[in-house]
Amino acid sequence: MNKPLILVTNDDGIYAPGISALVKIAKQFGTIAVIAPDKPQSGMGHAITINSTLRLQKTHYHSTDIELACSGTPVDCVKMAICEVLPQKPNLILSGINHGSNSSINVIYSGTMSAAIEGALEGAPSIGFSLCDYSMEADFFQAENYIAKLIEKSLKHGMPKGTCLNVNIPKLSKENIKGIKVVRQAKASWVEKFDARQDPYGRDYYWLTGEFINFEKEATDTDEWALANGYLSVVPTQVDLTDYKALEKIKEFEK
Amino acid sequence: MNKPLILVTNDDGIYAPGISALVKIAKQFGTIAVIAPDKPQSGMGHAITINSTLRLQKTHYHSTDIELACSGTPVDCVKMAICEVLPQKPNLILSGINHGSNSSINVIYSGTMSAAIEGALEGAPSIGFSLCDYSMEADFFQAENYIAKLIEKSLKHGMPKGTCLNVNIPKLSKENIKGIKVVRQAKASWVEKFDARQDPYGRDYYWLTGEFINFEKEATDTDEWALANGYLSVVPTQVDLTDYKALEKIKEFEK
Repeated sequence: MNKPLILVTNDDGIYAPGISALVKIAKQFGTIAVIAPDKPQSGMGHAITINSTLRLQKTHYHSTDIELACSGTPVDCVKMAICEVLPQKPNLILSGINHGSNSSINVIYSGTMSAAIEGALEGAPSIGFSLCDYSMEADFFQAENYIAKLIEKSLKHGMPKGTCLNVNIPKLSKENIKGIKVVRQAKASWVEKFDARQDPYGRDYYWLTGEFINFEKEATDTDEWALANGYLSVVPTQVDLTDYKALEKIKEFEK
Repeated sequence: MNKPLILVTNDDGIYAPGISALVKIAKQFGTIAVIAPDKPQSGMGHAITINSTLRLQKTHYHSTDIELACSGTPVDCVKMAICEVLPQKPNLILSGINHGSNSSINVIYSGTMSAAIEGALEGAPSIGFSLCDYSMEADFFQAENYIAKLIEKSLKHGMPKGTCLNVNIPKLSKENIKGIKVVRQAKASWVEKFDARQDPYGRDYYWLTGEFINFEKEATDTDEWALANGYLSVVPTQVDLTDYKALEKIKEFEK
């Protein structure tokens, strides 16, 4: 039997430490193709490139059979991989490991998760991994065993059609990680604060900053709870955004 | 009583014909603030600007009290409007009118809808409008009466917390539009095709193109059905991406 074909991408760029860790962990499970952005693409959400062209450049950083840096977004990488580059649909798509959390509402801003969501839309089991640690010295290998387990299970069991996994890893050492919890996305939001400054020419500019607010601090079935309690959070994630509960109420707008 | 404060933004840029139409229609309902991207931002999804700075520039194109072109994405515009610019939270946020469809799966790639979703996250009733017409001569006023009605209803009734409306307008003349249907997001996908070319220096580049596939052609309760049958489609839209049906199945991954 052929080895599984595993596509690895990310949003921090093809030379980021997180994708190197993910490639190293994934290598034991199959043939790896790395197709990832040629520069950091954090916060790109589900952006695609339609007003400019896309380019692919061979790189040799990860020592894999196929390795290409793409000028586009994480979603572009997945689309190009499947439609242009790979000899067959990948058996698994892995995105990450992102440098920073993509739990809760962060999923909608996340390039890492958009690549996984795009993979699910293309019909491939897909996982986005994110480490809740923003430090430059973040260690992406502390949860190595759990990441390997999730890859193995996904290859073995597959995933429901159109669904991918949003995996967040707590900032803990190996011995303090308690396990994996399959949970739902917590209701949360960012309260933005703009850091307003002046450039040397007296013109105003702004940096986007903010504070994360979890609206469900008491709930014990959310990704935020799992992470706060020492677990990797796994949220099965899909893209029907219809608010079914609101359909009846909004029907009034037809009249 | 004070007039309602209505924020208008878009993803085609502050000088696009679609936002001009929306501002004109909205003016009868309140005080208008226009804060929109200073250049086209199509396909930006829920992108935010975190690796570079943001700037605001006064413009005088729409003859409104507040009018600023923002260097960032549609989501950045909403965040900056609420946190930095407006004297109070807007009573309503309108995004569009987008030049092209944002029905069905297009919602996740859409800058127009991301602005509306961000509005809902910030606690303001929000509507994204899109016209299913890509021609340069698209007429954004054919559905004027329906757009006005949706604005009026939203100001009067508000929306469930965290929910916004994804409104798509069929490419039809005024007399052929049948009305408004409140529906769910159709399950659909894009089959991508990359148009591969060579630049004058012999290097390959690609344009992203594709074909839209509706997986639910028979269903009569979807946005695609409404549009194909002469109605404006209104999908109440929220951002909990958890696949609740898959939670039990994926629990296996904990073991």
